[in-house]
Amino acid sequence: MAMIEWFEDLSLGMRFKSGTVQVSEHDIKQFAAKFDPQPFHLDDDAAQKTIFKGLAASGWHTAAIAMSLAVQTRPFGPHPLIGLGVDGLRWMMPVRPGDILFVEGEVVGLTPSKSKPQGTVLIKWIAYNQNGDAVYTFTPIGFVPCRPKAI
Amino acid sequence: MAMIEWFEDLSLGMRFKSGTVQVSEHDIKQFAAKFDPQPFHLDDDAAQKTIFKGLAASGWHTAAIAMSLAVQTRPFGPHPLIGLGVDGLRWMMPVRPGDILFVEGEVVGLTPSKSKPQGTVLIKWIAYNQNGDAVYTFTPIGFVPCRPKAI
Repeated sequence: MAMIEWFEDLSLGMRFKSGTVQVSEHDIKQFAAKFDPQPFHLDDDAAQKTIFKGLAASGWHTAAIAMSLAVQTRPFGPHPLIGLGVDGLRWMMPVRPGDILFVEGEVVGLTPSKSKPQGTVLIKWIAYNQNGDAVYTFTPIGFVPCRPKAI
Repeated sequence: MAMIEWFEDLSLGMRFKSGTVQVSEHDIKQFAAKFDPQPFHLDDDAAQKTIFKGLAASGWHTAAIAMSLAVQTRPFGPHPLIGLGVDGLRWMMPVRPGDILFVEGEVVGLTPSKSKPQGTVLIKWIAYNQNGDAVYTFTPIGFVPCRPKAI
């Protein structure tokens, strides 16, 4: 892995891969009860009768898990993962109890700011399950400071 | 409020407004510890030294809260809020401990499916705080069944 500290250290095509996390039935129900209380995220029997045909994680739960995995990879080194928003957020497959997820990221956009000593960085992240199925993708619009100029 | 049951009951410009929810410091730290463990979401002192100048909710926490408020408004009546993804996800302002949030939604897209008895519905949601500041917006790509045809 290249040492990344500043905007200039990033290059198009650079890739990041996280560790894994297992999603439990308890986690799915707990998140849903708080943020997305719909039957297919709360109760397996009720979920069987829906389009999901069984309990599935809230898409926002998957999004939060993917963030936790992306943060872990420290794509911007010591600089935080912050941004103005996200493009290309798509859920491709349900996340089920017991699924083991990881994310892979690829730098797909690098735009130096014209007014500030920083750049905009687009990383396209894809979350995969233990079968290698892509379940979720998002491309946050992040920003990273430029290397301070020597005086 | 018009009774909404099927895709045909929705019209462009139709609006929805949720109740409110207060975001506590405990909630912010708990969510961040699990999903977005960065200093400005975890610790007020550390957060003072960052771009946020004080504790701020993870953007994914705000997103999850906005989902909980959107679900509450039942924009699709008895049909669930499910979708393939989200467009136009943007964080405009930090959400702080004690902030009181609500969402307003407006139907901005209605596209009948060519192959299935359903339609794609775009609702642009905006989350506001107690000062009337727009803090977050997202436009989920939802789908809703069409009214069954009489035989």
